[in-house]
Amino acid sequence: MTVKLFRNAAIHTPVDRGRPAAGSAQGEIAVFAKGTLLTEGGRIVAVGAEESVTARLNRRPDMEIDCGGACLIPGFVDPHTHICFAERREREFELRRAGTPYLEILRQGGGILSSVRAVRAASEEELFETTAENVLSALSLGTTTMEIKSGYGLDTESELKMLRVIDRIRRETPLDVTATFMGAHAVPEEFRGNADGFVDLIVDEMIPAVVGQAIADSCDIFCEEGIFSVAQSRRLLEAARKAGLKLRAHVDEVHDTGGAALAGELAVLSAEHLLAANDEGLKAMAAAGVIADLLPATAYSLRKPYARARRMIELGLPVACATDCNPGSCFCESMPFIFGLAVMNMDMTPEEALTATTLNSAYSAGLAGRVGSLDEGKSADFLLLDAETPAGIAYHAGVSPVLAVYKRGEHVA
Amino acid sequence: MTVKLFRNAAIHTPVDRGRPAAGSAQGEIAVFAKGTLLTEGGRIVAVGAEESVTARLNRRPDMEIDCGGACLIPGFVDPHTHICFAERREREFELRRAGTPYLEILRQGGGILSSVRAVRAASEEELFETTAENVLSALSLGTTTMEIKSGYGLDTESELKMLRVIDRIRRETPLDVTATFMGAHAVPEEFRGNADGFVDLIVDEMIPAVVGQAIADSCDIFCEEGIFSVAQSRRLLEAARKAGLKLRAHVDEVHDTGGAALAGELAVLSAEHLLAANDEGLKAMAAAGVIADLLPATAYSLRKPYARARRMIELGLPVACATDCNPGSCFCESMPFIFGLAVMNMDMTPEEALTATTLNSAYSAGLAGRVGSLDEGKSADFLLLDAETPAGIAYHAGVSPVLAVYKRGEHVA
Ligand SMILES: [Zn+2]
Ligand SMILES: [Zn+2]
Repeated sequence: MTVKLFRNAAIHTPVDRGRPAAGSAQGEIAVFAKGTLLTEGGRIVAVGAEESVTARLNRRPDMEIDCGGACLIPGFVDPHTHICFAERREREFELRRAGTPYLEILRQGGGILSSVRAVRAASEEELFETTAENVLSALSLGTTTMEIKSGYGLDTESELKMLRVIDRIRRETPLDVTATFMGAHAVPEEFRGNADGFVDLIVDEMIPAVVGQAIADSCDIFCEEGIFSVAQSRRLLEAARKAGLKLRAHVDEVHDTGGAALAGELAVLSAEHLLAANDEGLKAMAAAGVIADLLPATAYSLRKPYARARRMIELGLPVACATDCNPGSCFCESMPFIFGLAVMNMDMTPEEALTATTLNSAYSAGLAGRVGSLDEGKSADFLLLDAETPAGIAYHAGVSPVLAVYKRGEHVA
Repeated sequence: MTVKLFRNAAIHTPVDRGRPAAGSAQGEIAVFAKGTLLTEGGRIVAVGAEESVTARLNRRPDMEIDCGGACLIPGFVDPHTHICFAERREREFELRRAGTPYLEILRQGGGILSSVRAVRAASEEELFETTAENVLSALSLGTTTMEIKSGYGLDTESELKMLRVIDRIRRETPLDVTATFMGAHAVPEEFRGNADGFVDLIVDEMIPAVVGQAIADSCDIFCEEGIFSVAQSRRLLEAARKAGLKLRAHVDEVHDTGGAALAGELAVLSAEHLLAANDEGLKAMAAAGVIADLLPATAYSLRKPYARARRMIELGLPVACATDCNPGSCFCESMPFIFGLAVMNMDMTPEEALTATTLNSAYSAGLAGRVGSLDEGKSADFLLLDAETPAGIAYHAGVSPVLAVYKRGEHVA
């Protein structure tokens, strides 16, 4: 197996202690000012000061790469995306920005159900092409692992089509990908006024089909006033758990419906958005070890207040950050931009933001066993940055400082 | 001369009516849904619907380019940068973000005077290298014309060194560049407590030297509490005008010192920042035809409230937007990011933001005669965007949608 030695890098990485980093651990970063990284067959063998790493060599490396003193961090893990979609909604953005009421946008054919129509109408090949384009853009911006949700199909066949496309993204791009089944993203037109009936369909038909094809790792739902209630969410998530899926939930994005408390009660893997979550709910999440996936570019794009990241860290919640890349509320696949917003607009330290975009997001994606930090045995996924430290990602406002992207030890972007 | 025909583009451009676009004109954009652009020798011959443009052809074009339906806009004009610097200040960003008091940052060697030390110590070649790197990054993000200020030299020789480097940027990169002499950027250590004496030096020695070498187009000053007073600014700017330089002024960035009123009184070409400017001052500016250069990435990077762009447009001020690219308060050379902040955080319409980043910024740079809009006779400077309309620049949050950059009809990035 190919042995590579990456020398002369300013290495910054969270350290994986076997669980998501919470509280003060969120900001704990190992730093090797003149660091070296040794890889073999795409995995990390050793990382640290040059002498300690080269001591591990039992033969001459096949390649030696001088990183020129660049800052080296783990590849970004984006733990929350809806990047599998068929059509952008730029026109709707323009209407929303101009203050057009949501009902009028719907009347003009916008909103999430327009994405559903587009995905249902698209061929698998077309859907793959649009998805791959945005995924590869994310890769060039440093994302080496990504969670991707279904949820623009909303019928069994279309949801399976999305999950097959996501699986193909996993097989045909350099990224590690985890798939989330999100049939409960919205209530489709044919079930208007009958969310309970749609939950029945998901529980009775979709989840068994998804699990039967072993084509998703987890199940997600949009728990929100007027979408799916806490009771419906509980019923769906319990069925998904019984079927063997990991659980996630979009909760308290717009209204505080007690979704955070439900996330804690069910001890889901991750709870998403949390803009309106109350402290009791957050405490229940912390007690259950739920990861808070925060989506600052969505707040930016919707011109809303940001999630209370500082409060969550204070309460002991492990915080992860994600793009939420989707064609409606937030068309953004850039993790450097997310990192910047976390630091500038959610008042996280650069160290906390690094953990949020690598290690904790790897836990959220369910892939911390092999990505998310530069620990021995993990995949050699890392970035070289035009920066002295990770703080440089926020310092260089609105510009990606990613110079090079390595996945499994290979230079891929 | 080479004749090129760019077909099949969604062309959006402000129309130059011989003056900066103010009030409702700020949002007036000409749109050619299936547009064509004809260039000859790097200049625009015609723009509009395909038939009307091809009617102007008297011979077969040397090149025909199918733009594939991409959105085509004028190249960005960045009318306010301090991009000529020798060293980044990433460490200082980290300290400021962590709440370190400014005096402590100064004690640790930070602040603007650290940039002055770095520029004084740098060779002309070193200064050119660091400057060119950031200018070429800006070009790849769509900036085809740029204003660059001196102001990290603060002695005659070092200011002239900066202006020579800026002139070399103009000669050796594809961009159009206008140089601004800003000896009054700060009071250097050797004049501490004696700002009046430093203004004397600028007026008596620096301005004559700069004008003697014909190496700058305009003169700027940082009018602010504790830096240069309104009286000192008036004295310096009047001397600069007498010497034949165009005038600019950084006013009311932190405190309302009546700087906007001074800008109006002197009818300067552009007034910068204006975060704290009062309505009376803005009205005086509007009456005098002063362009308001707004710098939203500086507000972003310093986590301050944004300038009141809506109010300024309402008062009839032509608004331009700029990066303010500098190593301290705002390391950002991305005009797409500025466009996004203008729309998302200053509530400008995409049309107003397009005028602010092209036509009005060309007027601010003093170069509207040849850049800033797609009008006959102007330089063929334009961008192809991965977007349907300019609104797509804001829609694609934190990611540059610039697919291709053309300068004088040539594909340069
Ligand atoms: Zn989501
Ligand atoms: Zn400035």
